[in-house]
Amino acid sequence: MTDSTDRPGRLLKAPENFISPDGVRTVFGQARQGRRDFIRQAFAAAAAGGGALAGQQALAQANPVPADGGDSNILNLPAHSTGLGKGVATDGYGMPSSFERNVQRRTSPGLTQTTQSSVSFAPLQSLFGIVTPSGLHFERHHQGWWDVDPSKHRLMINGSDNRIVSKPLVFTMDELMRLPSVSRFHFIECGANTGMEWGNVAVPTCQYSHGMLSCSEFTGVPLKTLLDMAGVDYKRGRFVLAEGADGSSMTRTIPMDMVESGEVFVAYGQNGEMLRPENGYPLRLVVPGVQGVSWVKYLRRIEVGDQPWATKDEAVHYIDLMPGGQHRQYTSTQECKSVITSPSGGQVLLDKGFYAVTGLAWSGRGKVTRVDVSADGGRNWKTAQLQGPVMDKCLTRFSLPWAWDGKPSLLQSRAMDSTGYVQPTYQQTRAVRGTRSIYHNNSIQTWLVQESGEVKNVQLT
Amino acid sequence: MTDSTDRPGRLLKAPENFISPDGVRTVFGQARQGRRDFIRQAFAAAAAGGGALAGQQALAQANPVPADGGDSNILNLPAHSTGLGKGVATDGYGMPSSFERNVQRRTSPGLTQTTQSSVSFAPLQSLFGIVTPSGLHFERHHQGWWDVDPSKHRLMINGSDNRIVSKPLVFTMDELMRLPSVSRFHFIECGANTGMEWGNVAVPTCQYSHGMLSCSEFTGVPLKTLLDMAGVDYKRGRFVLAEGADGSSMTRTIPMDMVESGEVFVAYGQNGEMLRPENGYPLRLVVPGVQGVSWVKYLRRIEVGDQPWATKDEAVHYIDLMPGGQHRQYTSTQECKSVITSPSGGQVLLDKGFYAVTGLAWSGRGKVTRVDVSADGGRNWKTAQLQGPVMDKCLTRFSLPWAWDGKPSLLQSRAMDSTGYVQPTYQQTRAVRGTRSIYHNNSIQTWLVQESGEVKNVQLT
Repeated sequence: MTDSTDRPGRLLKAPENFISPDGVRTVFGQARQGRRDFIRQAFAAAAAGGGALAGQQALAQANPVPADGGDSNILNLPAHSTGLGKGVATDGYGMPSSFERNVQRRTSPGLTQTTQSSVSFAPLQSLFGIVTPSGLHFERHHQGWWDVDPSKHRLMINGSDNRIVSKPLVFTMDELMRLPSVSRFHFIECGANTGMEWGNVAVPTCQYSHGMLSCSEFTGVPLKTLLDMAGVDYKRGRFVLAEGADGSSMTRTIPMDMVESGEVFVAYGQNGEMLRPENGYPLRLVVPGVQGVSWVKYLRRIEVGDQPWATKDEAVHYIDLMPGGQHRQYTSTQECKSVITSPSGGQVLLDKGFYAVTGLAWSGRGKVTRVDVSADGGRNWKTAQLQGPVMDKCLTRFSLPWAWDGKPSLLQSRAMDSTGYVQPTYQQTRAVRGTRSIYHNNSIQTWLVQESGEVKNVQLT
Repeated sequence: MTDSTDRPGRLLKAPENFISPDGVRTVFGQARQGRRDFIRQAFAAAAAGGGALAGQQALAQANPVPADGGDSNILNLPAHSTGLGKGVATDGYGMPSSFERNVQRRTSPGLTQTTQSSVSFAPLQSLFGIVTPSGLHFERHHQGWWDVDPSKHRLMINGSDNRIVSKPLVFTMDELMRLPSVSRFHFIECGANTGMEWGNVAVPTCQYSHGMLSCSEFTGVPLKTLLDMAGVDYKRGRFVLAEGADGSSMTRTIPMDMVESGEVFVAYGQNGEMLRPENGYPLRLVVPGVQGVSWVKYLRRIEVGDQPWATKDEAVHYIDLMPGGQHRQYTSTQECKSVITSPSGGQVLLDKGFYAVTGLAWSGRGKVTRVDVSADGGRNWKTAQLQGPVMDKCLTRFSLPWAWDGKPSLLQSRAMDSTGYVQPTYQQTRAVRGTRSIYHNNSIQTWLVQESGEVKNVQLT
């Protein structure tokens, strides 16, 4: 730190006041006249008849009868408005409200034969914005999850021969965490997300149809940094094999182009803290835009080679059965896709009128540029609002005001990305892919709002 | 949804393959030759003597002896590499690793006389990126916290007289959550953050000096939307009073300019899920850039008036005692500030050499435009890298590579914002503010790295 880029601190200017002192006048006189008396004001409003829910009625609603044994008083104020609450936490790690206990990641009974090789789905219909709380991040385990001791965990970098990697290295977690890091928001989607829909098995809710999708701020070291340290010959080393430490020995090939772009990183952080055990603590590969299986958990080894490995997890699993009976391999990038999360399957619209239709859009190839929403099964479309910041290979929240007229409606969303690609209909995907795939379904989702208000997962054929 | 902005979906193009099939060759022959055999490879690397930690030594480190009673085997693989792990969660809400149990928000013993009117600090030194996990978000309670029943909670909008608000309204949570919402990333900082430092009481760690600071993606309804519905006369209604439902009856004045800009919103969501009880579940006012006390928790009422209220929480608390003995009020906007979170007080550098100096910068007046870092107490500065996206009134992560030469070093960071303001030194703030304030200290923080490697909070005078 010898170079000087000194810029003398400017003199501290007097802070611009939040509220000008000129506006602050004595209020005690007015208080005595009752002008600032909440109670009197509310009754006055009732007398004036202003608004549908004004005055006394409003006050009663704003101050419901206490349900939890609080002191009774003339206003029937709830206990939390009159009593002393709980102190700052002693365990030091907070949890959601007890009233939110049904917002959970959930397994699908019968979908898998063991809980160790299984899935839990994120409750997309209950989430806001783009960040998935780490406690609700979807899970996909191939042989169960472990709470791996980070002091014993190692990451090894080696080559498939010694000319490709001249200095094989092993890193402790401390060594990795000393290196320069990046923090980036990215979505992760299991390649099998929406897999049941290929066979027209329309699962009831958004959680089960699209819930193998989450989004976090990940922090870690660019893999390129580690490969540089290990002396990789990038002319010969065109592929990388990532290997996990859990019993499934998960192994996936990543093209070196992705690594060289700086996108791929070795993450230890997720949403500000260390990764969660179910999501690969203490180390996970982040491969933005690529299906979740390549984001190898419990990452213990990176091998650099000159050709793909065709491991069990890429030659036999995560492949696409095409109409002609051939299997298509290495289609790992998650194409542009979207889903309306509210209203969505299993929800009930209690009345006609205004709804803020909202959902998520994403693309493994870049940024979401536009989302259209239809309420008539794709005949007419309106362009939704995108909530910023719109980030690369990240979830984007969209929304559109909608007035439900009480008649059956077919809600759809259609996303477009920065490559110009438009999310396809089921007719379009089936024309290419048939109906026997499990993976890589990015078709437009349809929710039928029935006259009863109940929302159902349907497919238009 | 009658307007048509139809844009026929483009034909689904054949997906560009993640890996070209041409690169996939048969690997079984090579496997038989041992070329892709991990074990043989590692020993070969050892024989070749490549790298400091290559080969057999690397392998042993990568596969430590199991500590948890796993099956013994020739390689001494850990249990998690040979056994079956835990299944997908049955309780449906995940928690951090047991190895992270010391990463907690913490109270400062003796700082407050009760736990209900108290503070817990976020562990900034252990956090990454900009998102604060909700379970580690700092707490500041004035009369304890409550888990308020959202089905009984109401938000009332009224005027200090009937001409200012023509239609007083009361909203249920369901009514609020049907309205169009926004999701935005913002920091929240208690006005008393770094308050102990005014009196040169240098608390030992970054958690205790700067830990009343957090950052989340908040979701909710712009307050302007609600005021419009209530028929506010914006010519007369120039101020808003926000009132909480807890026993402290927290009330704060917000200037209407801020509300009209669309910035202020009534939030129910935080980091993708509902607010946490300690942070105001089910409803909290978000006032970007303004000190945390104005982000009223358990928000139950908004009153619109023509002048500030001068309530107890703004006339007596959260004010600045100036050198002349006067109290300065309504300085609520958090000025531009930064802090190095690593290395920081209480940490120990185990060796000379490379460190990635990293920290957080923020401004209540806009975006962070630049952060400089000094290792010699402000004589020489280098400009740090800012991690994108840099957002308005949001934490920004900065970092700078640094090689520690083993000698005493004075680490400082100095942030600048989009208004051109430069974070001041203690000399500068004290010249204006004296030493008897509690609130609104945004001075440059100094960490002394001692020859022993121990890092200490110091003030340069």
